[in-house]
Amino acid sequence: MIEDKNQQRTPLSELGEFKLIEHLTQHFKITQETTIKGIGDDAAIIDIKDKQIVVSTDLLVEGVHFDLSYVPLKHLGYKAMMVNISDICAMNAKATQVTVSIAVSNRFPLEALEELYAGISTASKLYNIDVIGGDTTSSTSGLIISITAIGEVNANDVVLRSGAKPNDLIVVSGDIGGAYMGLQVLEREKEVFKVNPNSQPDLSMYTYIVERQLKPEARKDIVDLLQQLNVKPTSMIDISDGLSSEIIHLCKQSNVGCDLYENKIPLDPQVISTCEEFNIDSTTIALNGGEDYELLMTISQDDFPKIKGNPNLTVVGYITEKDRGMHLVTRGETKIPIIAKGWNALGENIE
Amino acid sequence: MIEDKNQQRTPLSELGEFKLIEHLTQHFKITQETTIKGIGDDAAIIDIKDKQIVVSTDLLVEGVHFDLSYVPLKHLGYKAMMVNISDICAMNAKATQVTVSIAVSNRFPLEALEELYAGISTASKLYNIDVIGGDTTSSTSGLIISITAIGEVNANDVVLRSGAKPNDLIVVSGDIGGAYMGLQVLEREKEVFKVNPNSQPDLSMYTYIVERQLKPEARKDIVDLLQQLNVKPTSMIDISDGLSSEIIHLCKQSNVGCDLYENKIPLDPQVISTCEEFNIDSTTIALNGGEDYELLMTISQDDFPKIKGNPNLTVVGYITEKDRGMHLVTRGETKIPIIAKGWNALGENIE
Repeated sequence: MIEDKNQQRTPLSELGEFKLIEHLTQHFKITQETTIKGIGDDAAIIDIKDKQIVVSTDLLVEGVHFDLSYVPLKHLGYKAMMVNISDICAMNAKATQVTVSIAVSNRFPLEALEELYAGISTASKLYNIDVIGGDTTSSTSGLIISITAIGEVNANDVVLRSGAKPNDLIVVSGDIGGAYMGLQVLEREKEVFKVNPNSQPDLSMYTYIVERQLKPEARKDIVDLLQQLNVKPTSMIDISDGLSSEIIHLCKQSNVGCDLYENKIPLDPQVISTCEEFNIDSTTIALNGGEDYELLMTISQDDFPKIKGNPNLTVVGYITEKDRGMHLVTRGETKIPIIAKGWNALGENIE
Repeated sequence: MIEDKNQQRTPLSELGEFKLIEHLTQHFKITQETTIKGIGDDAAIIDIKDKQIVVSTDLLVEGVHFDLSYVPLKHLGYKAMMVNISDICAMNAKATQVTVSIAVSNRFPLEALEELYAGISTASKLYNIDVIGGDTTSSTSGLIISITAIGEVNANDVVLRSGAKPNDLIVVSGDIGGAYMGLQVLEREKEVFKVNPNSQPDLSMYTYIVERQLKPEARKDIVDLLQQLNVKPTSMIDISDGLSSEIIHLCKQSNVGCDLYENKIPLDPQVISTCEEFNIDSTTIALNGGEDYELLMTISQDDFPKIKGNPNLTVVGYITEKDRGMHLVTRGETKIPIIAKGWNALGENIE
């Protein structure tokens, strides 16, 4: 589907492990003053001084988290970084360093890994993050990417999942459901391609949602915005598995309930039109589709004037006492219990 | 070969990702005062205050780094921890936290993962390390373990690979070659078992080397010992790939040469006898066998009286000017250049 225009294929066996690491990481520059020692010793060294450190890790497996028949390797490298940076953003922290480990089968030539690392490199430059270490090894099948992200935060600024209080407003950044619908479009085109390998997919109608799927952005800008607005959320989580799954996490860990308003959920027009085309309910997608990497947070009502009218932040409901339960208030004003059916790496419902 | 006595098989699909993480990590206790927040949020939080942080990561892939036909899962979990802790020791630092990510195919029942985590848990208790996060996901084939270890160290105590100076002594902890010969014994028994599944292997002659392979220890005790002896090495690395490969790393990064004495290399009698039985040269094994996780360091000659006679530390040679090259001085007093042929995850010579 996506044609490989790079015809050069250097077998990894020509390099060996150490030369491969050296080759792939040669263009990574250290920019964080907290990075004392990056790649090249047994461990990297960081000196954060008076801040706290946040650490998050994610494992992406070919055939489970991504399909290389329509995901370009460069985008994959970029996205793998975003998945981890997003977790650091969800702590209201600033990502500063990452370690990147990959396992690859010998079906990948060097040029493929160069593409993957080009995406990682782009992300590290754009988000001002040092790649300080990693491991490169072979796998018996497919590609596995494991990234650990490290960030810094003032102890007073940390936002956990557990701080939501009754009457707090529930706020979502950006819009949701796009990444999932982008995946549906790509999966459909893959099926068409299987039947007719000469077909040229026209994705121009789906640019936004396909980009949401292939090249998501971690909402570092929202963390910066909140600081500018002088708003410290009472709780926060990133939306990787779908809104319903994430709001359940926040409510359970905060020991509260919630009312979420269907008509408030921010959807891009392309999500709505594609849902209509696929004959899927857009609210279901917003609740259960994953990989949007937006931030879901709760804020005190006192902070509402500060975020009011901001196009990046949408109030979608409010926190209630725990015994009120977790509900979606539909357009028809019926209340239905929220159940997580989000993207699940092990393939089942969470509840 | 190693009989699975645990007959219970709970499919992972019965739990789902979140419940699985919860189940596997429920017994992990936080013991480090620097761990502010462990598992359960988007990221973990650490507060190291005035120390520096060291970070190292390793990826272990089934069929590449381990063979489950003779590696019990509990030992594998333990070893995966040691591989990472060893890197932290090699910085002269103290490992304090880890994140543990695993990808598993559905051929593994829950009980198998419990075994794996039991080994991780044992290591975390013995080495006083907090498991603060991770990711659990499915794989299309086999088991993948990715661990990131975090440690702390006073800025003045850090030992890099790059500090060796001419005339420094080259010192090895413990003895080497055992893990590789243990692997040879296990591989041989696997072949016997394939031909005759009723055979009962007698490993009593190989207890030490099999344990070196299956249950290595990171040399945290050596880091403590060096501190007690008031010896700060000028450079240090852990021996994961074989002595020759590691000494080349030290010399290249320190811009020096070395003379390594064949007759000084510390070998356990069981390594020598098993090498004779397998008709392999024991020096070749010591130089090129991997996975011993001993420490290779250089120390100033002034510090020699402090380590002299210590059974845990053996002087195996000394550092020379770079233009003298890197050599092994054989028992016959011939000098031969050191070439790395160590364990290599991508299957070729390093040089």
